[in-house]
Amino acid sequence: MNYQNLNETASGAIILKGARPLDFTQELTGERVKKYTVSGVQGWTYNYAAKPVNEEILNLLQNLSDEMSLVDKYQDLLNGEMVNTGEKRKVLHQLTRGQLGKDVVENGKNIRKFYQEQQERVYAFSDKVHSGAIKGTTGKAFDTVVQIGIGGSDLGPRAMYLALESYQKITKKTQKMKAAFISNVDPDDANLVLSGLNLETTLFILVSKSGTTQETLSNELFVKKVLLENKLDPKKHFVAVTSETSPLANNPAYLDSFYIDDYIGGRYSSTSNVGGAILTLAFGKEVFAEFLAGAHEADKSAQEKNILKNPALLDALIGVWERNALGLPMTAVLPYSQALSRFPAHLQQLDMESNGKSVNRDGKAVAYATGPVIFGEPGTNGQHSFYQHLHQGTDVVPIQFIGFDESQVAYDIDVEGSTSQTKLKANLAAQIVAFAKGSPNENPNKNFAGGRPSSLLHNKKLTPGALGALLGHFENKIMFQGYVWNINSFDQEGVQLGKILTKAVLAGGAMDGALKAYADILKI
Amino acid sequence: MNYQNLNETASGAIILKGARPLDFTQELTGERVKKYTVSGVQGWTYNYAAKPVNEEILNLLQNLSDEMSLVDKYQDLLNGEMVNTGEKRKVLHQLTRGQLGKDVVENGKNIRKFYQEQQERVYAFSDKVHSGAIKGTTGKAFDTVVQIGIGGSDLGPRAMYLALESYQKITKKTQKMKAAFISNVDPDDANLVLSGLNLETTLFILVSKSGTTQETLSNELFVKKVLLENKLDPKKHFVAVTSETSPLANNPAYLDSFYIDDYIGGRYSSTSNVGGAILTLAFGKEVFAEFLAGAHEADKSAQEKNILKNPALLDALIGVWERNALGLPMTAVLPYSQALSRFPAHLQQLDMESNGKSVNRDGKAVAYATGPVIFGEPGTNGQHSFYQHLHQGTDVVPIQFIGFDESQVAYDIDVEGSTSQTKLKANLAAQIVAFAKGSPNENPNKNFAGGRPSSLLHNKKLTPGALGALLGHFENKIMFQGYVWNINSFDQEGVQLGKILTKAVLAGGAMDGALKAYADILKI
Repeated sequence: MNYQNLNETASGAIILKGARPLDFTQELTGERVKKYTVSGVQGWTYNYAAKPVNEEILNLLQNLSDEMSLVDKYQDLLNGEMVNTGEKRKVLHQLTRGQLGKDVVENGKNIRKFYQEQQERVYAFSDKVHSGAIKGTTGKAFDTVVQIGIGGSDLGPRAMYLALESYQKITKKTQKMKAAFISNVDPDDANLVLSGLNLETTLFILVSKSGTTQETLSNELFVKKVLLENKLDPKKHFVAVTSETSPLANNPAYLDSFYIDDYIGGRYSSTSNVGGAILTLAFGKEVFAEFLAGAHEADKSAQEKNILKNPALLDALIGVWERNALGLPMTAVLPYSQALSRFPAHLQQLDMESNGKSVNRDGKAVAYATGPVIFGEPGTNGQHSFYQHLHQGTDVVPIQFIGFDESQVAYDIDVEGSTSQTKLKANLAAQIVAFAKGSPNENPNKNFAGGRPSSLLHNKKLTPGALGALLGHFENKIMFQGYVWNINSFDQEGVQLGKILTKAVLAGGAMDGALKAYADILKI
Repeated sequence: MNYQNLNETASGAIILKGARPLDFTQELTGERVKKYTVSGVQGWTYNYAAKPVNEEILNLLQNLSDEMSLVDKYQDLLNGEMVNTGEKRKVLHQLTRGQLGKDVVENGKNIRKFYQEQQERVYAFSDKVHSGAIKGTTGKAFDTVVQIGIGGSDLGPRAMYLALESYQKITKKTQKMKAAFISNVDPDDANLVLSGLNLETTLFILVSKSGTTQETLSNELFVKKVLLENKLDPKKHFVAVTSETSPLANNPAYLDSFYIDDYIGGRYSSTSNVGGAILTLAFGKEVFAEFLAGAHEADKSAQEKNILKNPALLDALIGVWERNALGLPMTAVLPYSQALSRFPAHLQQLDMESNGKSVNRDGKAVAYATGPVIFGEPGTNGQHSFYQHLHQGTDVVPIQFIGFDESQVAYDIDVEGSTSQTKLKANLAAQIVAFAKGSPNENPNKNFAGGRPSSLLHNKKLTPGALGALLGHFENKIMFQGYVWNINSFDQEGVQLGKILTKAVLAGGAMDGALKAYADILKI
């Protein structure tokens, strides 16, 4: 496969020369809005009318995609090539939700089948918990599930849980169990979560692929100490999600253990049992299966080579244009849906941990900017907060809006002729146009220059399937951008140095002078 | 007063010429860590050893402060000058927690006294709620309080509530009432919050200075509809925090109304009754008074002209150096305390809404970068997420760490020779040094260039007083930066255009073609 740095490609060289931002302020007509749109799966559309692109730029981006064989590289990943070059691993999270490439077999083990078996084991376990066949120490059925994990074992599953909570909790369907999360090694986190729970009826899921994550193991022991103080038997209240080779595997300290492997990166693990155990326990296997089906459809659609028919690829390439031609270092993710309140935090990890890299897949320094900083909060809340900066600050921040026709729940109220959901949508439409077109005003304080680009991912409703497809969209977008930048989007060496220095502090031995001084300040 | 643009000052011109980032990688010794530190109030210290400054740069920043009379401008604000030039308003949030300047009197009304009277009214009301003298429709005492507000009426009070929740809930002191927040016009927000409450024993605080905020009024009616459906009398479950001239003032639809005025901006209102009502109801007046005292001490200490003795001023100026000399457009805020989980979201509003401006206080375009983008999540969580980008991404992002010797609660566990709190602190010390000094490695994937600047705000424990001082630190830091950039940090015209366009959509009449097309997509 033709792995090249962006600056070594003909299209990339043009992009990296830089460009004046296209003035789409006047160009943004109703016609353009209708034309610059692409249909995705599960009801999604990606609208890029308010992005600084035109036919010429889109042609250039198509050429870049072809020249760099972006879709062929994706196909290689699906076929089980070792694309995580740093850690020498395959990248197989797509196999947790379906199969699109060849069979991936290792030591006689079909990986897709392995993931499916583990899913089925979680489904069967959840059924037993829901039916009351598996109970806690005192013989009461479990009604609450708490995930103990950090990073990818926390942010994705938490964002997905919150996204489905409104849909499940308030619609006719009954949520099977309520859920909570403990992540931070700060003991205040575990203390606060536990203080609100009935421990007798609470099941804990310990999630660590390696089985050695410091924060997670500390929180496990923290929770077990509290269970014991409450005369509850920890091994009747704990299951583990881990790899088969971890110390947590097949361990009598847990009711059961469910397995993943090294081919599923933490931040890509929401569709594995890392997300699957808690989501299935909370909402039931049917809901989780719908979620997986949505993600699988997104994976399938990302194989399209025509960028104007592949939302993930097009979104990725427009992002590259903004980052490398226009030099914009940030992107705001703004969902107009309270259910997606923590989706930006998940994307922040997914994108920044994947593409915040300075060396290419062969370990050579890259000569161009890679992944942007990602941040965001739900609208309309953000409108009353940091949007001021996005509208009138001295920097241009590209925006990714997400919006829906309908709220999660039908219950709504009509005030001054419109429902809350209609107001939410009216605000969204207004913001897109305000950012793009601006508005001249004699009062310079009230003058808006416009020219602030945004895109809109739109759907009818945030169903489990739509959520899965949304997740798949961003996972695949980020992968395509990684290919463009010729980096390895699937390792994360950036956290290692901190771990080594942390150990030095905890060992209390020979420390660098500065480290010792900071340890002293913090009274360690 | 000598209001000048940054580029019109001698020191500013030097800064704006730009500078190569100082190589403090080698310079960061234990000695430097001990030297580059300044004591604040309420136990705070601000350590800037890992910031890219040296004696020469600090001298330049002192000159800038003197040349621009930054502390004198602050004194003018305290004395009631009309520093919000756009809206022609005084800026008096400091008066909600004490008085440092002259009496501010308007139409015979002493503003400090007015704020105090309103505080006392909230205290008296809270006492009656806590004692059960004021009850709900069915005669049951209130045990829950819900704030309905958005932007500054939500983010600050919510962040402060979460910060104090662990401290109060788990220590021996009993929390008076539990609290929740409804902000988004998305009906899923109100639905989800209400679904977890016993409405009989819930008191709602409606917060809108103007009394006309669309989201807040929609949510008020939403909640009232649900109360009526539950046969509860809304006027026995609602109080308002608003201005005396708003339609919510002195209105029989509420149990009572508490007043603020136009001199308290939304994002600066946590120490007014916007924060005071819910925090006093939740934790009692003694806790809120401690919080105010901490903020007042911070205000007092910000009057020091020697930048090496004024943490807020020094923090502000180092930020200016990073923004305008080094050209860094973002800042990450990373508290190593779960209790501060939403403090970065509050700071994001406080900073970006205040200083995300492109025109100066006289309405002329500025020729330099103003306020940065702010984002952040608590550590250690962020270490397992976006820190990869901060360590090895192609952009340098300055960092503001916040850390404590002790957790909120004493309950902890010893694992492998250290408590969770000790691990938390060891991680913090390790990260500061890892970012600053990096680490060479033959494997380019594991190589860390270092040179990534950070500062540390440190305290023994996050008490109510320490929290107030921390809030005051950032409010004053942002104010000083606004003076350096010669902008008005106290208006927010950037949200107005969206409001106008939203009304156009809701009116359904003549709309710009693009707006109509987006309204069609969203099926409005």
